[in-house]
Amino acid sequence: MSEITLTFPDNSERHFEAGTTTLSVAKSLASSLAKKAVAGKLNGTLVDIEQPLTQDGHFQILTSDDDEGQAVLRDTAAFVLGAALKKLHKDIHFGEHEANDDGFYLDTDRAAGQVAVNELPEIKKAMSKVISANQPIERRVVDKTDLLAEFKDDPYQESLINALDAVQIAVYQLGDYVSFGDRALLKSLAPLKHFELLSVAGAYWQGKSSNPMLQRIYGTAFFKAADLEADLKRREEIKERDHRTIGRDLDLFFVDPEVGAGLPYWMPNGATIRRVVERYIIDKEVANGYQHVYTPVLMNLNAYKTSGHWAHYREDMFPPMDMGDGEFLELRPMNCPSHIQIYNHHNRSYRELPIRIAELGMMHRYEKSGALSGLQRVREMTLNDGHTFLAPEQIQDEFKSVLKMMMEVYDDFNITDYTFRLSYRDPANTEKYFDDDEMWNNAQTMLKQAMDDLGLDYYEAEGEAAFYGPKLDVQTKTAMGGEETMSTIQLDFMLPEKFQLTYTGADGQEHRPVMMHRGIVGTMERFTAYLMEMYKGAFPTWLAPVQVEVIPVNLDLHTDYVKSIQKQMAAKGLRVKTDLRNEKMGYKIREAQTQKVPYTLVVGDQELADQTVSVRRYGEKDATHEPLKEFIESVEADVNNYSRTTATSANSSIEAKLDK
Amino acid sequence: MSEITLTFPDNSERHFEAGTTTLSVAKSLASSLAKKAVAGKLNGTLVDIEQPLTQDGHFQILTSDDDEGQAVLRDTAAFVLGAALKKLHKDIHFGEHEANDDGFYLDTDRAAGQVAVNELPEIKKAMSKVISANQPIERRVVDKTDLLAEFKDDPYQESLINALDAVQIAVYQLGDYVSFGDRALLKSLAPLKHFELLSVAGAYWQGKSSNPMLQRIYGTAFFKAADLEADLKRREEIKERDHRTIGRDLDLFFVDPEVGAGLPYWMPNGATIRRVVERYIIDKEVANGYQHVYTPVLMNLNAYKTSGHWAHYREDMFPPMDMGDGEFLELRPMNCPSHIQIYNHHNRSYRELPIRIAELGMMHRYEKSGALSGLQRVREMTLNDGHTFLAPEQIQDEFKSVLKMMMEVYDDFNITDYTFRLSYRDPANTEKYFDDDEMWNNAQTMLKQAMDDLGLDYYEAEGEAAFYGPKLDVQTKTAMGGEETMSTIQLDFMLPEKFQLTYTGADGQEHRPVMMHRGIVGTMERFTAYLMEMYKGAFPTWLAPVQVEVIPVNLDLHTDYVKSIQKQMAAKGLRVKTDLRNEKMGYKIREAQTQKVPYTLVVGDQELADQTVSVRRYGEKDATHEPLKEFIESVEADVNNYSRTTATSANSSIEAKLDK
Repeated sequence: MSEITLTFPDNSERHFEAGTTTLSVAKSLASSLAKKAVAGKLNGTLVDIEQPLTQDGHFQILTSDDDEGQAVLRDTAAFVLGAALKKLHKDIHFGEHEANDDGFYLDTDRAAGQVAVNELPEIKKAMSKVISANQPIERRVVDKTDLLAEFKDDPYQESLINALDAVQIAVYQLGDYVSFGDRALLKSLAPLKHFELLSVAGAYWQGKSSNPMLQRIYGTAFFKAADLEADLKRREEIKERDHRTIGRDLDLFFVDPEVGAGLPYWMPNGATIRRVVERYIIDKEVANGYQHVYTPVLMNLNAYKTSGHWAHYREDMFPPMDMGDGEFLELRPMNCPSHIQIYNHHNRSYRELPIRIAELGMMHRYEKSGALSGLQRVREMTLNDGHTFLAPEQIQDEFKSVLKMMMEVYDDFNITDYTFRLSYRDPANTEKYFDDDEMWNNAQTMLKQAMDDLGLDYYEAEGEAAFYGPKLDVQTKTAMGGEETMSTIQLDFMLPEKFQLTYTGADGQEHRPVMMHRGIVGTMERFTAYLMEMYKGAFPTWLAPVQVEVIPVNLDLHTDYVKSIQKQMAAKGLRVKTDLRNEKMGYKIREAQTQKVPYTLVVGDQELADQTVSVRRYGEKDATHEPLKEFIESVEADVNNYSRTTATSANSSIEAKLDK
Repeated sequence: MSEITLTFPDNSERHFEAGTTTLSVAKSLASSLAKKAVAGKLNGTLVDIEQPLTQDGHFQILTSDDDEGQAVLRDTAAFVLGAALKKLHKDIHFGEHEANDDGFYLDTDRAAGQVAVNELPEIKKAMSKVISANQPIERRVVDKTDLLAEFKDDPYQESLINALDAVQIAVYQLGDYVSFGDRALLKSLAPLKHFELLSVAGAYWQGKSSNPMLQRIYGTAFFKAADLEADLKRREEIKERDHRTIGRDLDLFFVDPEVGAGLPYWMPNGATIRRVVERYIIDKEVANGYQHVYTPVLMNLNAYKTSGHWAHYREDMFPPMDMGDGEFLELRPMNCPSHIQIYNHHNRSYRELPIRIAELGMMHRYEKSGALSGLQRVREMTLNDGHTFLAPEQIQDEFKSVLKMMMEVYDDFNITDYTFRLSYRDPANTEKYFDDDEMWNNAQTMLKQAMDDLGLDYYEAEGEAAFYGPKLDVQTKTAMGGEETMSTIQLDFMLPEKFQLTYTGADGQEHRPVMMHRGIVGTMERFTAYLMEMYKGAFPTWLAPVQVEVIPVNLDLHTDYVKSIQKQMAAKGLRVKTDLRNEKMGYKIREAQTQKVPYTLVVGDQELADQTVSVRRYGEKDATHEPLKEFIESVEADVNNYSRTTATSANSSIEAKLDK
């Protein structure tokens, strides 16, 4: 075959001499294209720009303008990283590598101790040296058996070679560094000017925790300096907002996989935030007719067999514990069966309905260790949970009142960026759901009607319902750009059947209640993580672990006044810290700002004489001068109003959503 | 041998013809003694009053005046119970029986369904019939093999016979009922006039939960009518005070062994009490410099291997869970290792000490199912726990300040009946304790000195210290008459060693801190049970689940006023219930009294017109008439003062103990 036919993305076909290259093809199309071209893609496989093309097929030219072209640059950077490391450390081994639209990484294994983050500048320098030398990367194709022989002392590469399907394998070499596989690398290293090494982190070989841990080096690269700069800024912002960073910087929590993966320890400051949230939501629910209970985290496994969790949800559950005498106890994965026990403890009458049982219920779910992340994905969690047992005709009213409470809570936390999703069963697959057509139709209509009555915007999602009933989810945007379900209201027609729940109706007959599962703020873990990211750690006064910090101008002269201020404010239930260390005043003020304390007070001669305080609000440059009494009242008001910046603006947001 | 020598309790010796009886011996001493004699005891073995005595030995005559004589009466009653049941139910089987100074019981097994509590009157009648017939109980001695043959169809009795050591066994018979063993039974049933059957309860055969469950029938008997009457009254009082009774009557909690033995469910009213206690103790501790945290209930088993719990405490721990990858997680049996994690999360300086870490820490301990009881003995518990890390020279001051806080807490709960026990190591067995003589001597002296400084009464108990250090226990009397440790302050020199804890001293060197374990109110479970019993369920206003109940005279005319009162009081954070059911007013008032609500308000025309309320305080007969506003203020004051009846009397009790 001396001619090949290439089909371009616009479906045009062109014929070329077999053995032509991506660069030649680009040149034949436009010289501007040839300048930007970095690689080709033939039938889905990357080809480098000077690699002979010998097959017909779908063909695409990757340029420095598009994401895949950028990935070629980053793959080249990963290769250069390997080459530079090999120059620095003869005995280093390599694992997997990847390049994509977010950056690149290369896994390394150094016998003399893993690569540390403080070595990155030196490594970057070595990469720059490789780039300026600009030796061409040699490409050759070899037999798999020869390649295996070449890497016979490197178990990682050997394993990677064995995993390849081909008999002949492309090999890339620069100096002593050899890599292989279907990569497209830049022919010249000259465009590789704007790159950065970002971080290092342990990564198990091939992602399995039973394998050795390698050290993964992360980096990124761009064709343009401005793009790199913008990306680094974006990364810095994400890192700043990441609740794990905030949690560490403000000493809010930590997780130590050695003592328990996915089992967070709440440090005193984090615990204070959580306690405020817990008391707030309990008080709110009690005021709304919920009866809070405490139920055990353990239950006889039989209950989860009855509920169906053991059959369908077992892999997410912890292993049962054999207590002897045939008793198996299980750490509960959800609280529903526990609240059913509460309901079932008495005979119930229609007069009592709806019965609203709520709890901050601790649950355990088995997550793979790789999926765990800070407070967001954990194995032990405490859910703001509630189960309402109600008569079918009460569904709509109850649904509305839960929604109303939910929106008040959002308002208090100043959460405004959320949408409502009404989730129905899939009408094309009704057999996949709890079998009661009339129920589904009624319930779905009722929920929709309620949303319309309240004048709320929502979108409908067919096929997103739970197996046991339709639901409403409240979707929030996370500060990191993702979406998560913060609140949910789910109707359940199945568990009342499975547990044979009843109430005596006005007719004296036994009837089956409906269950409504609902969560307002979700788990304490995830909600606190959300708040950390939303507020970037600068919590409003009512949530802040330390609300006020008091600093004396002169330790000898003003310490008594500082202590008196603390005492007066503590008596009002405020959280006040004094800084009486033998340090410079400016240092103390800066530290309070770093800790994002809402109010920093400085008191000296004048303040003592006038019984005033000099107040610096977090994030403001200038201090104001206020009488102590008025200041205390203003902080109290701040706490009682959940310290939104402008009470009216937040109120109007809820009114905009809820026009009744 | 035609003569035997009996040695009496006063060590006098007398000689009798062999074959004499207890009755004859009594007659020979005094006719008044013979009248009261009910049995004898020869060399520790009970003998019937007419049983021939053929051995020398220590001898005692049991009379109707002493406890052992009463036990003979009760054992006879248990025998009569068996005889009566056998008359009623031919096919009934019997298990074990016992008689002691508290009463008697007999285990029964009826194929046609177990004996129920409502059958007790009928059974009592049948017993009376047996007693009036007053047939003598036949006693004979038979070979073990013959007895086994006689009971070959009764596996319980067969097993009891096999457990006996003797070749010849005493057998007692009345009608068809046969019993055996070393019993002393009354010769005449005439004195068995004052007896009562008390209750029935399931009891596993020989106490093993893998065995069948029999039905145990409890009763008691006295020689005098007045004694029986007093005992029944005492039992009624104990039952009234028993937190399990109160918990059921006031719907505070329940335990269902089917879903988990020793795992209590807190119903809404019980949960409210617990929540008030939890918030109270957290706020109190935070005000006293404690930093509250949340730590996971699970921990890697390795931590308990390091702490020594796994080696020494394993049988009280739950089974570990295999999480894969060689990770074993354990439900924690105590919180110390968790708080050590918090301490160890940072490098610590002498400037930070003492560091007081506190938590309402949930723990799990494996208790045998037979030992479980209501909220008092459970398998899942939440401890008011605290660990202070301090420099050795801070021990005394810290100890005093914990003691002071502890007594303030007691005062707020109005707990006055407690004693202090200082527990030292056993000076004769110092090798049984953590090895550091100087530490022990210093620490014990410091604690004693602190108690003396505070002018507190205490007693010293050598050999009662923990392995790891001396301690102070606060012993309270329970309402049921028992004694339990409510609070404890324990010094620990061992865990800081095992976990290699350090802080940087003023000298720049690393030093080992001391740990102080302390609990003020113990577990939420046991403390709430204690409060239930102490208050007999009539909780003071600040703890009461419902503080005020409002009842309208006329539903049509006064419901709005009732609701307005509720709203005004709820806005002040008070727990107010309205009773708007279509029931008679008197019925509602009585029910509020049964529920032991502190304040019952009745409002009618006059109250509505004057904006007043008619107030009935719990336990008082007469209602008072008060302006609503003043009433609300008085209830608020009640809550803020922890509503002790007379603030001064309680205050003086703490001042009497703590003269500083």
